[in-house]
Amino acid sequence: MRILLIGATGTLGAAVHKALAGRGHEVRTVGRSAGDLRHDITDPAGVTALYEAAGPVDAVVSAAGDVPFKPLAELSPEDYLAAFHGKVLSQVDLVRQGIRHVAERGSFTLITGVLSREPIPTGAAASLANGAVEAFVRAAAIEIAPQRINAVSPSVFTESLADYGDYFPGMPPVDLADVARAYVRSVEGAQTGQVYELP
Amino acid sequence: MRILLIGATGTLGAAVHKALAGRGHEVRTVGRSAGDLRHDITDPAGVTALYEAAGPVDAVVSAAGDVPFKPLAELSPEDYLAAFHGKVLSQVDLVRQGIRHVAERGSFTLITGVLSREPIPTGAAASLANGAVEAFVRAAAIEIAPQRINAVSPSVFTESLADYGDYFPGMPPVDLADVARAYVRSVEGAQTGQVYELP
Ligand SMILES: NC(=O)c1ccc[n+]([C@@H]2O[C@H](COP(=O)([O-])OP(=O)(O)OC[C@H]3O[C@@H](n4cnc5c(N)ncnc54)[C@H](OP(=O)(O)O)[C@@H]3O)[C@@H](O)[C@H]2O)c1
Ligand SMILES: NC(=O)c1ccc[n+]([C@@H]2O[C@H](COP(=O)([O-])OP(=O)(O)OC[C@H]3O[C@@H](n4cnc5c(N)ncnc54)[C@H](OP(=O)(O)O)[C@@H]3O)[C@@H](O)[C@H]2O)c1
Repeated sequence: MRILLIGATGTLGAAVHKALAGRGHEVRTVGRSAGDLRHDITDPAGVTALYEAAGPVDAVVSAAGDVPFKPLAELSPEDYLAAFHGKVLSQVDLVRQGIRHVAERGSFTLITGVLSREPIPTGAAASLANGAVEAFVRAAAIEIAPQRINAVSPSVFTESLADYGDYFPGMPPVDLADVARAYVRSVEGAQTGQVYELP
Repeated sequence: MRILLIGATGTLGAAVHKALAGRGHEVRTVGRSAGDLRHDITDPAGVTALYEAAGPVDAVVSAAGDVPFKPLAELSPEDYLAAFHGKVLSQVDLVRQGIRHVAERGSFTLITGVLSREPIPTGAAASLANGAVEAFVRAAAIEIAPQRINAVSPSVFTESLADYGDYFPGMPPVDLADVARAYVRSVEGAQTGQVYELP
C-alpha cells in the first residue's frame, strides 16, 4: 500500500516506519523539519498542501501530537487550546481533508495514549486531548465507511522510560515494536472505530 | 450545601434544580439570559465574574454545553473549535477558576453524554467534546483532591425524544429524574473521577 506517515522521524514514527516498510508498504514520510514532505498539520493549509503533494494514498498514519504537561493549577486556557490544536484538531483535519484523497477502502490511524483512561499528575491537557481523539475515532468510523479509522493508545514506551518513566510509577510500559504492530493491524486489518489499548 | 448550578433554566438544568432543592440545598442558578447570576461560561472573564458574585460554594454543578451537529463531511475546523469552547473549555474553566472558591471537600459535576461511547451520524463534534470532558474529569480528580469531580454522561432524555429521538433509533433513553439523581450522587456522595453513565 501507499502510506502517508506523519511524524516519521519521532520516537514512535521511526518504529512505525520500520514496521510498515518491513511489510512491503511504500511509506511517504511527513514532518515539519524532516521527511519526504514537510508540512505542519496544525495548519489546515499545511494539510491541504500535504495532500496535494502526496497524491492518492491507501492509508494515512499519524504518530505526531504535541501537548503541554503542567500541574493542573498551572494549566491555562491557552494550554488546553494548545493541546487541542497540537493533537486533536491537527489529527481531525488529517481525516476531514483526507477523506477525498484516501482510497475507497483506505484507512486512517491516529495516535492517542493511555492518559485518556489512566491519568497522571501534570497530564490533564494530555488526557483531555487523548479522550477527544478516541471519541472522535469511534464517531468518524460510522460516517466514513467503507473507509476505516482507528486509534492506537499506548502506555509510556519502554524506550521512553529514561525520559518519562518517573511520571508512570508502576504502570506497565509497552515496547515500540508492539505499538508499531498495532499500526500494522489498523492499516492491514478490517476493523474500524477501534481504540487499540497497549499493553 | 450552597450550590452553583450553571444552565439551570435548560431542560436538564430544571430537573437538576428540582432534585437539589428537594434535598434541601441552597441553589444559585446561572445562565446567560436567565438565572440568579447572568454570566457566559465560555468567556474566562465571565467565569471570574461569576465566582466573584457567588462567593464561597460547596459544589459547582454544570448542565450547560453547546455543540454543533452536522454530517462529518460538513464539520469545519471552526465547528470543532465551537464544540471545544462551548462544552469543553467552558467546563474546564469552571474547574480551573473554581478550585479556590469551592470548599475544601467540595465538588464539581460536569455534563457530557452518551456520544462519547455510542456515536450517531452528525455527532462527531459532540462525541469529541464529551470524550474530552470525561478524560479531563478522570485526570483532574487526582490533582484536586480532597475536592472532588465527576461527570454525568446520559443518553438522550426521555423528555427530549420528541426533539432528538430520530437520531437515537433503538437506543435506550433516560428519564430526567434519573439523570438528576446522578447529580445528587455526585454532589452528596464521596466518589471522584467517576463518569456516571445513564441509563
Ligand atoms: N513517548 C511516549 O512514551 C508516548 C506514549 C504514549 C503516547 N505517545 C504519543 O505518541 C506521539 C508521538 O510521540 P513521540 O514520543 O514519538 O514524539 P516525538 O519523538 O517528539 O516525535 C514527534 C514527531 O511528529 C512530528 N510532528 C510533530 N508535530 C508536527 C506537526 N504539527 N506537523 C507535522 N509533524 C509534526 C515531529 O517532527 P517535526 O518536529 O519535524 O515536525 C516528529 O517526527 C505523541 O502524540 C505522544 O503523545 C508517546
Ligand atoms: N437533551 C438531551 O437529550 C441530552 C442528552 C445527553 C446530554 N445532553 C447534554 O446536556 C446539556 C444540557 O442539555 P439541555 O438539553 O438541557 O440544553 P438546554 O435546554 O439548551 O439548556 C442549556 C442551559 O445552559 C445554559 N447555557 C448554555 N450555554 C451557556 C453559557 N455559555 N454560559 C452560561 N449558561 C449557558 C442555557 O441558558 P442561557 O441560554 O440563558 O445561557 C440553558 O439554561 C448539554 O451539554 C447537552 O449536550 C443533553
